[in-house]
Amino acid sequence: MTSQGPDTELPLLIRAARGLEVERTPVWFMRQAGRSLPEYRALREGIPMLQACRTPDLVTEITVQPVRRHGVDAAIFFSDIVVPLAAAGVDLDIVPGVGPVVASPIRDRAAVEALPSLTADQVPDIAQAVRQTVAELDGVPLIGFAGAPFTLASYLVEGGPSRNHEHTKALMHGDPQTWDLLCSKLAAIATTYLRVQIEAGARAVQLFDSWVGALSREDYVRYVQPHSAAVLAGVADLGVPRIHFGVGTGELLTVMGEAGADVVGVDFRVPLDEANARLSGRYPLQGNLDPALLFAPWEPLERSIDAILDAGRAAPGHIFNLGHGVLPDTDPDVITRVVQRVHSRSAR
Amino acid sequence: MTSQGPDTELPLLIRAARGLEVERTPVWFMRQAGRSLPEYRALREGIPMLQACRTPDLVTEITVQPVRRHGVDAAIFFSDIVVPLAAAGVDLDIVPGVGPVVASPIRDRAAVEALPSLTADQVPDIAQAVRQTVAELDGVPLIGFAGAPFTLASYLVEGGPSRNHEHTKALMHGDPQTWDLLCSKLAAIATTYLRVQIEAGARAVQLFDSWVGALSREDYVRYVQPHSAAVLAGVADLGVPRIHFGVGTGELLTVMGEAGADVVGVDFRVPLDEANARLSGRYPLQGNLDPALLFAPWEPLERSIDAILDAGRAAPGHIFNLGHGVLPDTDPDVITRVVQRVHSRSAR
Repeated sequence: MTSQGPDTELPLLIRAARGLEVERTPVWFMRQAGRSLPEYRALREGIPMLQACRTPDLVTEITVQPVRRHGVDAAIFFSDIVVPLAAAGVDLDIVPGVGPVVASPIRDRAAVEALPSLTADQVPDIAQAVRQTVAELDGVPLIGFAGAPFTLASYLVEGGPSRNHEHTKALMHGDPQTWDLLCSKLAAIATTYLRVQIEAGARAVQLFDSWVGALSREDYVRYVQPHSAAVLAGVADLGVPRIHFGVGTGELLTVMGEAGADVVGVDFRVPLDEANARLSGRYPLQGNLDPALLFAPWEPLERSIDAILDAGRAAPGHIFNLGHGVLPDTDPDVITRVVQRVHSRSAR
Repeated sequence: MTSQGPDTELPLLIRAARGLEVERTPVWFMRQAGRSLPEYRALREGIPMLQACRTPDLVTEITVQPVRRHGVDAAIFFSDIVVPLAAAGVDLDIVPGVGPVVASPIRDRAAVEALPSLTADQVPDIAQAVRQTVAELDGVPLIGFAGAPFTLASYLVEGGPSRNHEHTKALMHGDPQTWDLLCSKLAAIATTYLRVQIEAGARAVQLFDSWVGALSREDYVRYVQPHSAAVLAGVADLGVPRIHFGVGTGELLTVMGEAGADVVGVDFRVPLDEANARLSGRYPLQGNLDPALLFAPWEPLERSIDAILDAGRAAPGHIFNLGHGVLPDTDPDVITRVVQRVHSRSAR
């Protein structure tokens, strides 16, 4: 046995997220736990999404499934972006084929003031699920997650998934004080939700701002960045790496980094070396294979994987991932093959 | 009467598109003809979309309605991106609430080879509708339009609207020769469709590549640009300005310009002065008010209009527009007010 410094005992993912030496590039996939896996579909049969997310044994099994099958270097906690809202008491449901549907959309001051807050004792099941999952994962790190204030606000204001976010933007521009109150409350909810996960054993967190690519940089800086920054700052004392990701955010990479990220997630539209240049080489990056390419034949897919690994070397650290979530019809064997390629191709 | 050069007899829109002197900024709106207008909804009552698009009297009236109501500086020909495909003989329908649905998605070589071509004599109704509309417009210029090859291909390959374009990208990367054949055929169809409109009296054209923002720049240049360039080159001899627009194309502005545009359309995510800088000041620009802002109170909306007019002065020409189409629930009175503001604020 050779003697090793303490750094090499950290999981690969954490070292890459910290810009430390790695023996190969770690890899995981957004939405790796879920619809693409037959063992997931079997387990979920007849169980509504929100109920599944609040049942620790199910959450544990679903979170561990892709680690077992694909050999990825991290697990992502199985949950939904609206789970902390439901736990706080917002009347909503997750409708199959639609997404979250909010009973009473929040569009005025009174509704914002009435939005409940979230305390850790409202989500004992989440803490329990994290503890069980960490035990089951046997050293593979678990990534906790929460939706960022803008994306949560969009669901609440629109009443569900939205392509254009018109009511959200109308509130943001039309009544900035109410908007700020809404996002402050959502930032507090997201912070609580992340702290619960970290305190129960999550080794990293990802703040998902799924829809934020719908904003110009100016609007992001003015209306969104302070609230995302509050969430990221709100878990800083817990010392785990904070990954910050959104879709279509080529215009926003720098300001999303400056919100307080340790790792910036990059969608598939911007090559990692270019993203690294935009970010002045200051952040380890995560990404960014186009999930649609998992439907292509292996040869072009392999070329894309290799190109991403090459481009990722420009950054101070690289966590291989997709540039968006796994699509439901993805062949899970292809996902496994991508993991194998990343592992073999990136070994030093 | 003062003597005037021939340039001042050109419509405002054409002068702005050519980077010539204008007395104020011209304005029109993508999707100005359509769902936001009660007079449109009344006229369409009970008439399927494809049928409406092939009925010259209806097309004329629908195209003219927003000019009459809002006093915009151009009309956009009322049609749908899939009309030339249907006219060529592709079995498809436009389903309310869904969009185009293709009976047999095109995913292999044989299907691509079987894709029919379009000749001008298959769309006499389109030529007639354009002629009637031009007569009715009494000097206000009509903009013709067509969907670009990538966006048309996405509808045909996916079989309908798609969020992720996975089958399209799989074909593009997996079988580039079949992809190129498909896009060459679609480029020919789009070219024919635009030539028919220009020869019947359209004074400008817009090539819409609605979904192209789903691609990285590298993929755009390799798989899409040559085919869009073929369309734009294919109408060059007719001498009308060619506007080229897509959504979420901040990464693609330069390469969309280089495809052969006279005017580059900019979506709402990139300010016009920044777009102009990316394009090295080489193109008049069109855009780029966020259509969601039409749902905000007047004060922030007015500020945004003014900021766009100011930013647009950086470019060699500016046509005011939205950064995407008018949303269905938009209040038409707000649209009229935007036109009035642009007209009064931009008068020299």
